[in-house]
Amino acid sequence: MRHSLRGQVDPFIVMDVMEAAARAEAAGRHIIHMEVGQPGTPAPLGARQALAGALEQPLGYTVALGLPALRQGIADLYRRWYGVDLDPARVVVTPGSSGAFILAFSALFDAGDRVAMGYPGYPSYRQILRAMSLTPVGIPTRPEDRYQPRPGDLPDDAQGLILASPGNPSGTVLTVPELSALTQAASARGMAVISDEIYHGLSYGDRCHSALEVTDEVLVVNSFSKYFSMTGWRVGWMVVPPDMIRTVERLAQNLFICPPHASQVAALAALDCIPEAEANRAVYSENRRLMLEGLPRAGFDRIAPPEGAFYIYADVSHLTDDSVAFAAEILDKAGVAVTPGLDFDPDRGRRTLRFSYARATADIAEGLARLTAFMAAR
Amino acid sequence: MRHSLRGQVDPFIVMDVMEAAARAEAAGRHIIHMEVGQPGTPAPLGARQALAGALEQPLGYTVALGLPALRQGIADLYRRWYGVDLDPARVVVTPGSSGAFILAFSALFDAGDRVAMGYPGYPSYRQILRAMSLTPVGIPTRPEDRYQPRPGDLPDDAQGLILASPGNPSGTVLTVPELSALTQAASARGMAVISDEIYHGLSYGDRCHSALEVTDEVLVVNSFSKYFSMTGWRVGWMVVPPDMIRTVERLAQNLFICPPHASQVAALAALDCIPEAEANRAVYSENRRLMLEGLPRAGFDRIAPPEGAFYIYADVSHLTDDSVAFAAEILDKAGVAVTPGLDFDPDRGRRTLRFSYARATADIAEGLARLTAFMAAR
Repeated sequence: MRHSLRGQVDPFIVMDVMEAAARAEAAGRHIIHMEVGQPGTPAPLGARQALAGALEQPLGYTVALGLPALRQGIADLYRRWYGVDLDPARVVVTPGSSGAFILAFSALFDAGDRVAMGYPGYPSYRQILRAMSLTPVGIPTRPEDRYQPRPGDLPDDAQGLILASPGNPSGTVLTVPELSALTQAASARGMAVISDEIYHGLSYGDRCHSALEVTDEVLVVNSFSKYFSMTGWRVGWMVVPPDMIRTVERLAQNLFICPPHASQVAALAALDCIPEAEANRAVYSENRRLMLEGLPRAGFDRIAPPEGAFYIYADVSHLTDDSVAFAAEILDKAGVAVTPGLDFDPDRGRRTLRFSYARATADIAEGLARLTAFMAAR
Repeated sequence: MRHSLRGQVDPFIVMDVMEAAARAEAAGRHIIHMEVGQPGTPAPLGARQALAGALEQPLGYTVALGLPALRQGIADLYRRWYGVDLDPARVVVTPGSSGAFILAFSALFDAGDRVAMGYPGYPSYRQILRAMSLTPVGIPTRPEDRYQPRPGDLPDDAQGLILASPGNPSGTVLTVPELSALTQAASARGMAVISDEIYHGLSYGDRCHSALEVTDEVLVVNSFSKYFSMTGWRVGWMVVPPDMIRTVERLAQNLFICPPHASQVAALAALDCIPEAEANRAVYSENRRLMLEGLPRAGFDRIAPPEGAFYIYADVSHLTDDSVAFAAEILDKAGVAVTPGLDFDPDRGRRTLRFSYARATADIAEGLARLTAFMAAR
């Protein structure tokens, strides 16, 4: 069968780690999972109860932009979280943040356009761009900048910029002045800005700031996956400028018809489950404390301040220049699955690792003990 | 904000009809819905019960290609329905058939490629293609060919062909010889074939035949939306040739991460709910009988034999050359919502209408009585 060029996207390196971990478990070993980028908790109880109560309904197609009550509820979140008064007409419910990126890239860019993003960054940004005949332009970021791009780093020949705060894999957060400077610099270069805020709510010092606090000329992407612990439900959202609503609506009608109805019902109820989400965050907060104490003690001391999300990105260049082999060694000898940096930074990721602390605290403690023993014996 | 050219896809004409119908209902009128392309029934009881029983589980991400048991269950369906022995590794669970088209077009075609399809046809084919910088090439089909393309109609300069059987809006079905001739003609021209089989199971004479009965060099798209009455759940599937599995897996990992987990749980159980699906089909069958009796009597007698799906496509060129205005008149005077043909055929759809018979039989009878009175008074 014929194959397109754009369909030849890179594999996820982490998949090989996950498969190796699964093989080890099938062989009877106990593995600590620090590779996985999702909560181990289910959707909030109230969300699951709401869906259970709705299962008698037909749950047919919703309108393409999502249930009106859900769009209103998300708009209300912006008032509570950021003090931003947001017209719910600008809220587009999407099939996960993945669906939001497909809509944003279709609405903004034509084949051949170039879209910039900081490296390290979420690998699917560049793969989705490639699958849509767009060119990802990596901006190498610096540890001293908390792995976030500087305004002066932006290329002059790109049509778009993806920002991520908290970043994945770094967990670092953009301040309001940084958001202002970056969005202004992008605007001055004629670049459309997409702000990935999927880890908002999961911060451990100050709250995260939305790009909507500094400009309306931005597409903001978020999701119920992380803070609301609903990864597999595939329901996210995007806030668009008023002049993009109709374009995005027509694209959504054709590309997706609608986000999954059952997931929208659950997500609407999840908005009222803040105490449960905050209880999850308290677990991540304790996990993070253990990681920040234990990782340097084990020998992983070159890390960016992980202000949000549930990741720590470590420079291991003093330990290896082959992170894939190093991750395989850690899995084999320590029984801890971690992610090689190559997924996030195709250039420099040979010398970095990502540690996730999304699982139960007891697992984190056990993982740290194993990593410490492994490094001591190395 | 900047807008792309490819993001400027056409609006759905039917949306204006649906909004006008909603306004009429809000004003207190009773409207019969023959415009809607989805069952009025919920997901099968067994599917909803299975999901209710699974809500204690985390329901996180599944693997990108879908739950292994679901892929196996779908493969088993091919044995039962078509006598085809299908390796479940070739089954890709997708976020609706919409997700399957996005995956297929990404995996097969590069920007600028041309993809042919019969007109009239499902409007989102051409809009998804445009949003992905591909060029839809309409093949005008003939009523005497049951609105299906002939092998000799295929263009020489296209890289792909979409077949649809049963067709939407026509409801007409391709025979095994027709499937063979069309897929062979496409292959001879170097075209990849995508066979849309989303209405399989909903036929009223002979069973529908899959393109997989005549070739493995085809991408077959199907869904739980129609026969299994699960439109809003957004779970479909695609069968791909063995040499495409890895490409499609990588694309699915990046473009969607996974299909909605809760919907996959429901879909797996739906495979065991054939009696309920068949009871729905019996309703459509009776509706179809009423339509085939009542529509010609009312004056809509130029129709293709609707062998499957739940649509009837009528040539109304003897009544109007403005199907949009005619549909508005029918809504206004008869209280029946129907779809103007322009969504399906941008050229000739000014002189056609689509009638859907997916709703309850009593509604169909009432709608036909209203249409008869409307036409008699016209």
